[in-house]
Amino acid sequence: MTTANEGQELTQVGPGTPMGQLMRHYWLPAMLSSELERDGPQVRLMLLGEKLIAFRDSAGRVGVLDQRCPHRCASLFLGRNEQGGLRCIYHGWKFDVEGNCLDMPNVTEDQDFKHRVKAKAYPAIERAGLVWVYMGELAGGRAAPPLPGFEVLDLPADEINVHMMMRRCNWLQALEGEIDTAHFGFLHGGHVDPKDVPETDPFYFTITNRAPQYHVADAPWGTQYAGYRGAGPGQTYWRFANFLFPCWSQAPNGEFASHMHARGWVPIDDNHTMFVFIFWKKARSAQALPQPRFKDGTPIGGTGRGGIRMLPNTTDWLGRWRMAMDESNDWGLDREAQRSNRIYSGIDGIHLQDQAITESMGPVTDFAWEHLARSDQMIARTRRRLLLAARALRDNGTPPPGAGQPEVYRGARSGYFLSQDQSAWHEVYARTLAEAVHP
Amino acid sequence: MTTANEGQELTQVGPGTPMGQLMRHYWLPAMLSSELERDGPQVRLMLLGEKLIAFRDSAGRVGVLDQRCPHRCASLFLGRNEQGGLRCIYHGWKFDVEGNCLDMPNVTEDQDFKHRVKAKAYPAIERAGLVWVYMGELAGGRAAPPLPGFEVLDLPADEINVHMMMRRCNWLQALEGEIDTAHFGFLHGGHVDPKDVPETDPFYFTITNRAPQYHVADAPWGTQYAGYRGAGPGQTYWRFANFLFPCWSQAPNGEFASHMHARGWVPIDDNHTMFVFIFWKKARSAQALPQPRFKDGTPIGGTGRGGIRMLPNTTDWLGRWRMAMDESNDWGLDREAQRSNRIYSGIDGIHLQDQAITESMGPVTDFAWEHLARSDQMIARTRRRLLLAARALRDNGTPPPGAGQPEVYRGARSGYFLSQDQSAWHEVYARTLAEAVHP
Amino acid sequence: MTTANEGQELTQVGPGTPMGQLMRHYWLPAMLSSELERDGPQVRLMLLGEKLIAFRDSAGRVGVLDQRCPHRCASLFLGRNEQGGLRCIYHGWKFDVEGNCLDMPNVTEDQDFKHRVKAKAYPAIERAGLVWVYMGELAGGRAAPPLPGFEVLDLPADEINVHMMMRRCNWLQALEGEIDTAHFGFLHGGHVDPKDVPETDPFYFTITNRAPQYHVADAPWGTQYAGYRGAGPGQTYWRFANFLFPCWSQAPNGEFASHMHARGWVPIDDNHTMFVFIFWKKARSAQALPQPRFKDGTPIGGTGRGGIRMLPNTTDWLGRWRMAMDESNDWGLDREAQRSNRIYSGIDGIHLQDQAITESMGPVTDFAWEHLARSDQMIARTRRRLLLAARALRDNGTPPPGAGQPEVYRGARSGYFLSQDQSAWHEVYARTLAEAVHP
Repeated sequence: MTTANEGQELTQVGPGTPMGQLMRHYWLPAMLSSELERDGPQVRLMLLGEKLIAFRDSAGRVGVLDQRCPHRCASLFLGRNEQGGLRCIYHGWKFDVEGNCLDMPNVTEDQDFKHRVKAKAYPAIERAGLVWVYMGELAGGRAAPPLPGFEVLDLPADEINVHMMMRRCNWLQALEGEIDTAHFGFLHGGHVDPKDVPETDPFYFTITNRAPQYHVADAPWGTQYAGYRGAGPGQTYWRFANFLFPCWSQAPNGEFASHMHARGWVPIDDNHTMFVFIFWKKARSAQALPQPRFKDGTPIGGTGRGGIRMLPNTTDWLGRWRMAMDESNDWGLDREAQRSNRIYSGIDGIHLQDQAITESMGPVTDFAWEHLARSDQMIARTRRRLLLAARALRDNGTPPPGAGQPEVYRGARSGYFLSQDQSAWHEVYARTLAEAVHP
Repeated sequence: MTTANEGQELTQVGPGTPMGQLMRHYWLPAMLSSELERDGPQVRLMLLGEKLIAFRDSAGRVGVLDQRCPHRCASLFLGRNEQGGLRCIYHGWKFDVEGNCLDMPNVTEDQDFKHRVKAKAYPAIERAGLVWVYMGELAGGRAAPPLPGFEVLDLPADEINVHMMMRRCNWLQALEGEIDTAHFGFLHGGHVDPKDVPETDPFYFTITNRAPQYHVADAPWGTQYAGYRGAGPGQTYWRFANFLFPCWSQAPNGEFASHMHARGWVPIDDNHTMFVFIFWKKARSAQALPQPRFKDGTPIGGTGRGGIRMLPNTTDWLGRWRMAMDESNDWGLDREAQRSNRIYSGIDGIHLQDQAITESMGPVTDFAWEHLARSDQMIARTRRRLLLAARALRDNGTPPPGAGQPEVYRGARSGYFLSQDQSAWHEVYARTLAEAVHP
Repeated sequence: MTTANEGQELTQVGPGTPMGQLMRHYWLPAMLSSELERDGPQVRLMLLGEKLIAFRDSAGRVGVLDQRCPHRCASLFLGRNEQGGLRCIYHGWKFDVEGNCLDMPNVTEDQDFKHRVKAKAYPAIERAGLVWVYMGELAGGRAAPPLPGFEVLDLPADEINVHMMMRRCNWLQALEGEIDTAHFGFLHGGHVDPKDVPETDPFYFTITNRAPQYHVADAPWGTQYAGYRGAGPGQTYWRFANFLFPCWSQAPNGEFASHMHARGWVPIDDNHTMFVFIFWKKARSAQALPQPRFKDGTPIGGTGRGGIRMLPNTTDWLGRWRMAMDESNDWGLDREAQRSNRIYSGIDGIHLQDQAITESMGPVTDFAWEHLARSDQMIARTRRRLLLAARALRDNGTPPPGAGQPEVYRGARSGYFLSQDQSAWHEVYARTLAEAVHP
């Protein structure tokens, strides 16, 4: 049970909010590297409710500046990206990627005070085809921490793929759709009759038993659950998944042995979220494999075409990686497909189904209206973990889990597998992980 | 004189507001029955500022639920309307028209707590082609009251007709346009020259004398006025009209003897109103009769085409029964028609003229800016009656007039007639009503 | 350094705000006279955050009334402009340009109280093709003051021209773009190479020396600055400009000797401004002269076409004199033109460049974010002058500069000139003005 006040604590991420401060202790993936070209057009970037301008300088370095020129607040979106910095077109003041003022040409030399003026700049680095931004305080020359140690980030660059998709709701409810294994058999597979699915299909057990059992526990990186179902004599069908600080999930949508990925739910502002999906192209995952199919050949979960139709990017603050389907068109809901149970939800495509459900809760869900079930214990525990970490940071300055400790993410993986191991769930996990593919 | 504070009391209808609580003691007409088909698509329904989902189940019963699934707040608009209930597509929880949770299939039997979960549901009944909703508290098994006893509701179903039209302003200022007889000779008939109207036309006396006298008094159902004018030796032209709790009017737009109707101004939220017009098809009313005409054959009050052009319904919260003309197109105002006095207002059609005037005041009018005249005494008295009733309910729990007492509406009728009866106005009314057509 | 609180004081202009009260001590140019025809359609006019209706009566007088009919608040935009007044179409009440109620036809003679009802009306006069409105209190029969005594207003009517253009930002930041000489060499001329400009071109010195020196001082009409640069042995290139109470500028965009003009930045509301440009058609000004050109013939400052494309007026509150380019289309920013330095800003046209910069700061700039330089002393002094005047009015009732004293504007002129006079700047100014063209 989450109160309305706790809901605010969890979902508000602007400067000075407890969760906003927590988020500012981590590197956040903000853009695709390919969105910025050397000396090319800068991009309006909203992150944690702040309006930023991202650009790539002549040396290839990425700069992320507050959009307001520190002189007269003209937008640096209008600025000239030239020779190692962004120059405001109003009076020609020029700033490098660190916010240093390189030039103040509208005043005489004796009036020049460029050494006392800085544009607000956030450190940015690039990894896995992404631009990562660190928005925390770095007073006293403190260095930003290392990137989180997701195993997928250790793979060769050309084996990693990345997608971004915006969602029109708060980051937390977007993320919570990921650590909720019970919805799979309904939202995505409610229309699937077990007898239509081969026993060899990973979907089989989620369809034959739609009310799995769970183990849930804190983990060094956040929280972890194991959903499990009997799978024939002496055998268990396991689905492991993780929440990872501050806004990441690992979902069991692939085979555990090779399923290296990380899914970020990065707050654009309190009401918009950028989903950042980093995955190993060679994984034997649900994404990489051919779409599971009914025995008659129809793809399970719809054709998926609806789920990935995107609008062209614009230069607006909320113009990047938008979905073509949203509340304004009822997420393409097809009542006839729903009624006939061709598609349980009437919405075509797994991603779009998740998007529709989480967006339908409104920009921020009404926490006090909920009735959490035993199937929601992962959600409840994750909220608790986030709240306690945000409060410990606010009240005692305690760094939140994983901040500056990339190694805590090392042991985190998700996925499904069959096992005859009758040990406690943590041991099953540890043993399976030890045998799995590693970068 | 109404203060700004009183204006707020009168116009705010959300949960917990005094007027909102008053409204929640009555059945409110919310939709056409024809908007819902058995096991068909549910409808987004905003009522008294609450977001509801209406559906018709397999047995034909209408359900009206809060849009938020009580589990995780996913919108039940996305739900599946199947076999006696609405099923949330997120985890398959299913609710009947009373909000009972019928199924909780994502948890095991021992974890099931469906007997402790209810969707918020409001009772709904159907009458006169309308779905009526009761949004009040029914603690302790208290039954909802009967429907209001408007005589039009006693007519055979096939002799009743119903229209719905949305208005983009507060319910009270929409309603007040109805209990304001003095505007007729201006807004609707200002361009009419008395010598162009036959003396036998009901319009004749409103045109020849645009400043009628009034009687105004409280009535068991709310308030009543009689506008009267001399109509030749020993004869009076009477126009009777009513306000009926909580948001109904009966206008004198038909002949008293047969004019059975009721006009609801149902609050969608504080800034939008659904006009619900229930009328007897066989009445000798201005609506049923051929449109009155000038001697040269031109219809008085415009062709009326402009007034009834509507946009197709959408699934949006404010998408039902919208008018094609609104503030964004200046209600189709034709300055040339206005200047030439072909149409006094320049706006074509009586309904559209009323809509334009009440919407032009803004979402909520500036009460403190008004200068009420003697011609506004019905409005002043009606506001006073509403305020006192809302305060008596809030402060002492006194049920407002007509709530649970359908019989108080029995004696209410509106319309015009000529009479040589020189008695007091109440007696003239009573005697004329006694002789009138009754269902 | 301006605090956030001071920023609010400076930019909020609604009724009751300190700066709003200051503005209400002056005549403000609100419309072109040509926007109103005798007995023609009235116009929605927003001014200082108030919703007004402007019309021209049968005698040609202009009326400016609050949009709310004082009877029931129906909008007088819908009213009939007929025979000496505006008649509300609701009940026929009629008001003249002074707000007097001329007719109250919906009540009987004994109920008539028209002598006690007034529409809120503001005095309006016409001059230089403009409708000027005075929105101050005129209690006790106090007359409105005379118009400000700009010399341009003394010219023959047919030698004056007027333009209006809306800007989507606060009035102050729009105005401040005008009293900021240092931006010229960047925003407008950053792409110009001195060797491409003939020495005889007025642009020459702003291009060869982009960091001019300044004198700044209070003036009777507000504030004044002189930007100056060496211009060969014993010679100085001067640029004089003024801020004039309450919201006017005179910019040095023409030759001083003949440059009679006034540029108003009239607050529509806190977030929108109407630029009103009054100028002498025969001035040897940058506007009147052929556009300065590079030696190769290309116009300096772009073709200017982008800067003056306007949308057709609509009847909306913010529908008049809108620019086709605005934030929604990034002010037509052409990154290629910017990168190649064909146009420094990438935005085509001087007016559009100014508009883009001031609008890019947001509706109201973040004062506390600024770092003002020596080049901004005119801005700093002007803000101080405005604040002190607004506070003196609020606290002591002191009339602000120029209010009711048209003569203080007499000595104000702007423009550039070359001079060998080595006197103090005020004397150079006075002497040059004495020799200049006068109306």
